[in-house]
Amino acid sequence: MNGTASHTAVRWADGTMGACDETVADEVPVALVYNGVSHAVMMASPCDLEELAIGFTLTEGIADRYADIVDVELADVHAGIEARITLAQHPWQRLKTQRRQLTGRSGCGLCGAEHLQSALRPIARVHNDYTTSADALLAGLTAMTAAQPLNRATGSVHAAGWLGTGPLLVREDIGRHNAVDKLVGALHMQRHGNDGALLVTSRASYEIVHKAAAAGIPVIAAISGPTKLAIDMADAAGIALIGFARDARLTVYSHAWRIHETQSV
Amino acid sequence: MNGTASHTAVRWADGTMGACDETVADEVPVALVYNGVSHAVMMASPCDLEELAIGFTLTEGIADRYADIVDVELADVHAGIEARITLAQHPWQRLKTQRRQLTGRSGCGLCGAEHLQSALRPIARVHNDYTTSADALLAGLTAMTAAQPLNRATGSVHAAGWLGTGPLLVREDIGRHNAVDKLVGALHMQRHGNDGALLVTSRASYEIVHKAAAAGIPVIAAISGPTKLAIDMADAAGIALIGFARDARLTVYSHAWRIHETQSV
Repeated sequence: MNGTASHTAVRWADGTMGACDETVADEVPVALVYNGVSHAVMMASPCDLEELAIGFTLTEGIADRYADIVDVELADVHAGIEARITLAQHPWQRLKTQRRQLTGRSGCGLCGAEHLQSALRPIARVHNDYTTSADALLAGLTAMTAAQPLNRATGSVHAAGWLGTGPLLVREDIGRHNAVDKLVGALHMQRHGNDGALLVTSRASYEIVHKAAAAGIPVIAAISGPTKLAIDMADAAGIALIGFARDARLTVYSHAWRIHETQSV
Repeated sequence: MNGTASHTAVRWADGTMGACDETVADEVPVALVYNGVSHAVMMASPCDLEELAIGFTLTEGIADRYADIVDVELADVHAGIEARITLAQHPWQRLKTQRRQLTGRSGCGLCGAEHLQSALRPIARVHNDYTTSADALLAGLTAMTAAQPLNRATGSVHAAGWLGTGPLLVREDIGRHNAVDKLVGALHMQRHGNDGALLVTSRASYEIVHKAAAAGIPVIAAISGPTKLAIDMADAAGIALIGFARDARLTVYSHAWRIHETQSV
């Protein structure tokens, strides 16, 4: 399977050790190269990388519209994979200007922004009036569990799902953010609308909410809990943020008007 | 509790909604400022931040020795928290040189390195001959579950633990890497040796192995699985990498000679 590798390991169970063949998740460096200039590198599961490139470009505000991403080509290079993105003139000029302003105070970039001011970027506001039900979200999360082949094979990757008007759409990655970016990329490539909910297998952190807001997503349901900052951001963005959605329960932390008690019939 | 906040939410259970008071994890931007120059910002749980600063400085190779970190001061500033680190002359000159080389090709830094070559840095080799037992690792992970107050209160933070000669040492953070950095910082401040195992509540990815190698840690045991790249790195570094350490089982992916079947008596 794409995104997995085999490895002979030693398993300890019932007090004894024995050799075993394991399927493990691949993890490769992926460079995002805009109009020929290398911009960022992330570790990712090597599948659905065109969607990752498109999703990242949109959720990080590098392009405002899918139409501004002219082309994406993937290339295997020595140290990893390059996603070569061609941006339209306007977003490319803006990115160049932003990059020029950063010159001279470049950090190691290990974690992200170099200055506190750039860590908390302004968040987009989601304007649609989409609502859904607690039942539907829980059923969607249950269905998502059955739609994670990479995690079933390896037990160690995250998933992001889209519960909209069509069939459930699921994308997987070793990184939570990447799974969301792949999903957002797929939503745009398949021309889904914004009426639906983002389902995530992880906790809901600030960055997940920020990416969802940039993509115009009105509801986020996470299996684990949210952080305080994620709640504050969801509140500001008009997003219903749901946590601990499991075992037939869930908790709504913001914009609870988007969530009914039962499925409308 | 430091690192948590209260939030009034709506809980759905048994088909009905009701208001509830929730304890959620704080998430704040922390800037690492070296000798007055802002270097990197990460989102973190606002506790044990001096340890985080020390651990990050060591595991990212900014200083090679604890003694080269002259001082750490924490300051609340408008947008978050600054950890102001004073480096000794040699590591500071080296960091300045590295930063100068980056000038002019600064990325957004959203994820980390900007070029593929810098994503896969050379890994340190762990030279000690420490061994432990599968029993001891599983008992350590069980004990760690009881030593995670932040996760018990919020249900949404990671932990890293040190199973050495003294009592189990545990640090928590919303970020898996930060939990490891806090632990490494604590190990140095408390002058523990390197004979022991790193326990993590998450999967074992490339970066966790890289940080452990930089800290000279010979064994890593993760509750979830490893990636292929993490296994390859652990193999190269001389680290025993253990995954799926739960339910009285575990799998050893590299350097299995470090793990006996039963506790030596």
